[in-house]
Amino acid sequence: MNGPEIARMIQLLAKLPGLGPRSARRAALHLLKKREALLRPLAQSLGQAADAIRTCSICGNFDTLDPCTVCGDARRDGATICVVEDVADLWAMERGHVFSGRYHVLGGTLSALDGVGPEDLNIASLVARVRAGGVGEVILATNATVDGQTTAHYIADRLASFDGVKVSRLAHGLPVGGEIDHLDDGTLSAAFKARRAV
Amino acid sequence: MNGPEIARMIQLLAKLPGLGPRSARRAALHLLKKREALLRPLAQSLGQAADAIRTCSICGNFDTLDPCTVCGDARRDGATICVVEDVADLWAMERGHVFSGRYHVLGGTLSALDGVGPEDLNIASLVARVRAGGVGEVILATNATVDGQTTAHYIADRLASFDGVKVSRLAHGLPVGGEIDHLDDGTLSAAFKARRAV
Ligand SMILES: [Zn+2]
Ligand SMILES: [Zn+2]
Repeated sequence: MNGPEIARMIQLLAKLPGLGPRSARRAALHLLKKREALLRPLAQSLGQAADAIRTCSICGNFDTLDPCTVCGDARRDGATICVVEDVADLWAMERGHVFSGRYHVLGGTLSALDGVGPEDLNIASLVARVRAGGVGEVILATNATVDGQTTAHYIADRLASFDGVKVSRLAHGLPVGGEIDHLDDGTLSAAFKARRAV
Repeated sequence: MNGPEIARMIQLLAKLPGLGPRSARRAALHLLKKREALLRPLAQSLGQAADAIRTCSICGNFDTLDPCTVCGDARRDGATICVVEDVADLWAMERGHVFSGRYHVLGGTLSALDGVGPEDLNIASLVARVRAGGVGEVILATNATVDGQTTAHYIADRLASFDGVKVSRLAHGLPVGGEIDHLDDGTLSAAFKARRAV
């Protein structure tokens, strides 16, 4: 209705999770009303993020540095790796300050339904990190869903042959079917403390 | 947690209507996962919109042209002005193809509660358009809310002195308390047809 620029903006905004076509239109109007205060800063911020943000080649975190800030922080415990499904889970744990080791982001879970196999996840790179040595414990912090638990079992099997590497799971205490990204810090912290050997 | 770029992106996304802090974080993660397919195109689209989109100096519509496509379209009826609160209402009417005249965007409603007076809205420019001549009818298409009706009454008073200018309102038939942007095209079209003189 007002040239292709606005239509394209609405079309792209509608691809964000949580925004449908109607709310994308509302968001576009809001941005156009606040062109200098919001639209231009957001455009610049997204452009800078696209240029600057990398995927950490060690753990899969997003950061401007590679290795990421977590992997590059010598004060963090390099002997403990916490395996998570998604960067969102890593961020949730960092926000909660519940863990001071390193991470490994799988990028999803095994899923027969969605045709996701081990080769589609960052599992080989996890095994390589453990094989390289210096790792005393791998904490499997996948979600308490069927796919998350299946994935944890699979990884535990893959790591079983490494002597001296303890493989643990977050304690039950997470609501069954619940997702780590939605937990409060207290529950998350308790689950870390009560983790058990697999 | 991962440098200021991501924090700033989340902070700006959280200012969009419909996105809170949590959903802004989800949106940011989604964008970072789809850096080339979505993040960069969105950054470019928003940048282009910020550069290209103008507020029409006649009616207040958003467009790459000034005067906008509606105001510049000689086939549209320049003798009829439809007064709306917001560009969203103009877009809703254009989507519904229910009106073929010109528009005037007020930019809000009078509101004692929010301290919005006539000088805060595009009312003087509406009066100037009518005073310039050639206008036979002004249709007041403000929302069927208390503030919308108050605003319509106020504008009708301001335009009462112009001989030969009919001032009308959209027919009742809009749900009371309802907003134009949320109506289906049929209701909107019926409301146009049954509009009555003030
Ligand atoms: Zn890393
Ligand atoms: Zn215009």
